[in-house]
Amino acid sequence: MKLLVVGSMALDTIETPFGKEENILGGSASYFSLAASMFTDVGIVAVVGKDFPESHLDLFRSKNIELEGVTREEGETFKWEGKYGYDLGDPDTLGTYLNVFENFNPVIPENYSNVDYVFLANIDPELQLSVLKQVKNPKLVACDTMNFWIDNKPQELKEVLKHVDILLINDSETRALAGEPRITIAARAVLDMGPKILIVKRGEYGALMFSRDSIFWAPSYPLEEVIDPTGAGDTFAGGFMGYIAGNDITTDPVGFKTAVVNGSVIASFTVENFSVRRLSNLTKEEISIRFAEFLKLSKVD
Amino acid sequence: MKLLVVGSMALDTIETPFGKEENILGGSASYFSLAASMFTDVGIVAVVGKDFPESHLDLFRSKNIELEGVTREEGETFKWEGKYGYDLGDPDTLGTYLNVFENFNPVIPENYSNVDYVFLANIDPELQLSVLKQVKNPKLVACDTMNFWIDNKPQELKEVLKHVDILLINDSETRALAGEPRITIAARAVLDMGPKILIVKRGEYGALMFSRDSIFWAPSYPLEEVIDPTGAGDTFAGGFMGYIAGNDITTDPVGFKTAVVNGSVIASFTVENFSVRRLSNLTKEEISIRFAEFLKLSKVD
Repeated sequence: MKLLVVGSMALDTIETPFGKEENILGGSASYFSLAASMFTDVGIVAVVGKDFPESHLDLFRSKNIELEGVTREEGETFKWEGKYGYDLGDPDTLGTYLNVFENFNPVIPENYSNVDYVFLANIDPELQLSVLKQVKNPKLVACDTMNFWIDNKPQELKEVLKHVDILLINDSETRALAGEPRITIAARAVLDMGPKILIVKRGEYGALMFSRDSIFWAPSYPLEEVIDPTGAGDTFAGGFMGYIAGNDITTDPVGFKTAVVNGSVIASFTVENFSVRRLSNLTKEEISIRFAEFLKLSKVD
Repeated sequence: MKLLVVGSMALDTIETPFGKEENILGGSASYFSLAASMFTDVGIVAVVGKDFPESHLDLFRSKNIELEGVTREEGETFKWEGKYGYDLGDPDTLGTYLNVFENFNPVIPENYSNVDYVFLANIDPELQLSVLKQVKNPKLVACDTMNFWIDNKPQELKEVLKHVDILLINDSETRALAGEPRITIAARAVLDMGPKILIVKRGEYGALMFSRDSIFWAPSYPLEEVIDPTGAGDTFAGGFMGYIAGNDITTDPVGFKTAVVNGSVIASFTVENFSVRRLSNLTKEEISIRFAEFLKLSKVD
């Protein structure tokens, strides 16, 4: 196994202008692993409840995603209810039920501990630190976080950032983390906290990748059919890290840029349907066709 | 003269997190013409009041901008007061004083009427139609508009759109004009109204250019020093149209894409200082250095 993700598996109830779906497969580790599986071997560490359908686990197994680190606990699975407005921008959260996720204590299976690439999805920074102690000598660690942790566990989060190579967050998280509204200055402040690379996810506006001496701007694919934006960011991270792990990239700048474009490409599929449906039947050929269209998008001649 | 702009000249009072400046030169025609003058010969049709400083007119003259169409009327110049918040996003309008602009009736001087390229800045669509009747046989007409006209003069605006080649508006205006939140579907609906090209300006997120069979995505330059975003959109339009007029472009796709990048480049300078200060001392060499950096931004290898 090349790539490990530690995050959530959830049952989401989601309403968009195009419909409402109840208790559909969601969670950062779900989107991430299915996206990454297009490029590499991936394993999940997560927790589910007694109500989590076995058919979802079969979906992961069908993509050769390793589930040894997924534990099933007494109680219900983590649930999230959200509603998107007319413009499909930030959703209103109608309900968050942590359930078994509340006591999530990630234990890395012994035969995962030598993994080369690690992604710490958006979980409590203390749990992220615990994972970092359990993996032996990864080549590259990336992580996500959110405003809640920036506000409530800043010290723990800053400790995490000292030990990760890549941070993937959105515009407002970048500004909040740095306490600075101007994105380039904020990015530099974040890089000073530890990560060698910062990727700022901007939804339909693409993504910016900052390193100490360069900036790369990737477009987002202008879509006809956006049905449900849920999971776009985790899919982006999965495509990005999957490409990196699958190609053993550690420092190559062109490799990182190609990975960003692959992240954007895969995310553009995810939002075309609810849950992971579009990811489930995605083919490598579809990815490479859209990858080529992507490069054309910002080409002048 | 190759390019005519019909729009506003204003005295702005602007507050940003970086300072407050009173009665500084503003207005769509001001930003547009100074940007366009980097690439071509441009003339203005606008109205100012008795209080409009002669030194501002001297600035335009120093850039060889023709002012025969600028009339000075009894009363005060159009004034706008705005305040930008922490993130330099959409400003709060603290005051709008139309003054002489309220009765603006654009009269195109006889020796402008054969002009090849025309830009109708954001003014009443009825006035835009009046200008269209006064120019004889332009090669290419572009226009801007805003939500106020989309809501209040939809019929007149749609009549304008039948006669323009290029529409430059922002994200929310595109969605409002089409009555459709998804930007690609909205863009197609707008193209059905008449324009052959739609440019969607997205501020710090760049610009999208749509034609019937293509999409081009231009980044915005990630800036260290954003001081005052006022005029970025009009500067973009000026750089875009200036490049097109200066190179006699009418259909060349690479020419249009290059023009979009030049628009973004020039806009990136405007926001580095209040008013038109940065535009006033901008050199062609600075533009070409940043143009090259721009192309590098979204280049994978």
